[in-house]
Amino acid sequence: MDFTFSPIGLFHTPYGSTEAIPKAFGKTPTAWGSIEIFPEYEKGLLKIEAFTHLLVIFAFHRSTQKPLTVTPPTQEEERGVFASRSPHRPNPVGVLTVQLLKREGNFLFVSGLDVLDGTPVLDIKPYLQHFDCRPESRAGI
Amino acid sequence: MDFTFSPIGLFHTPYGSTEAIPKAFGKTPTAWGSIEIFPEYEKGLLKIEAFTHLLVIFAFHRSTQKPLTVTPPTQEEERGVFASRSPHRPNPVGVLTVQLLKREGNFLFVSGLDVLDGTPVLDIKPYLQHFDCRPESRAGI
Repeated sequence: MDFTFSPIGLFHTPYGSTEAIPKAFGKTPTAWGSIEIFPEYEKGLLKIEAFTHLLVIFAFHRSTQKPLTVTPPTQEEERGVFASRSPHRPNPVGVLTVQLLKREGNFLFVSGLDVLDGTPVLDIKPYLQHFDCRPESRAGI
Repeated sequence: MDFTFSPIGLFHTPYGSTEAIPKAFGKTPTAWGSIEIFPEYEKGLLKIEAFTHLLVIFAFHRSTQKPLTVTPPTQEEERGVFASRSPHRPNPVGVLTVQLLKREGNFLFVSGLDVLDGTPVLDIKPYLQHFDCRPESRAGI
């Protein structure tokens, strides 16, 4: 059973190429930009200003490969793609937490971007600490 | 431009119906269960045990409606669907953070479940604190 999703909007970011995106490992992304929600979905933004942070689900639309193992930049050892945040994966879908700075109509101005300009947005959800924040988490590699 | 995704696995959870899922608002889900990764994707799990927590992207496969506004349970006021975690949304995709308890072959035993048994899994990513944890976030509604 496959699932087909249509973009609800687009990211507008400072990054026109993957090479332009800083590889700031271990640091929260800081770039600013916006998310344009297509007008037919604008009603879905009602009261979104109540949340300081949002989870954005998006498509890695430039991804062309689907390897099962990868060797991340700055790493030497191969790991499984599900143990990596690589854009090249069986289902090229990404998730990014951003801070909502302000809303103007169908535009959300946000910080914390590390995605390509023009990246298609599939969904937006409010970030809920009890669900989404795990300060006790550890990453061994 | 649409995007079509094929499940890489399935959730096995204690919840056979949406009514069985506890509505523990403001609390982290605690139920245990597993994620079965289909054998053809097992190689993608290499070294996943290095991470204590995982982000799981999944399809709300029972979702049939795509409203733009919703009134969440325990709430009285309507809000936009993008200001809610409702399973009924334009693209019925969900994201869940789970704790990885152990891996046995192509099965990941996890806690923190609040999804239906049999839910199709589209992607798994390591949870990275600097990317995914926002203790300063606030939810006004």
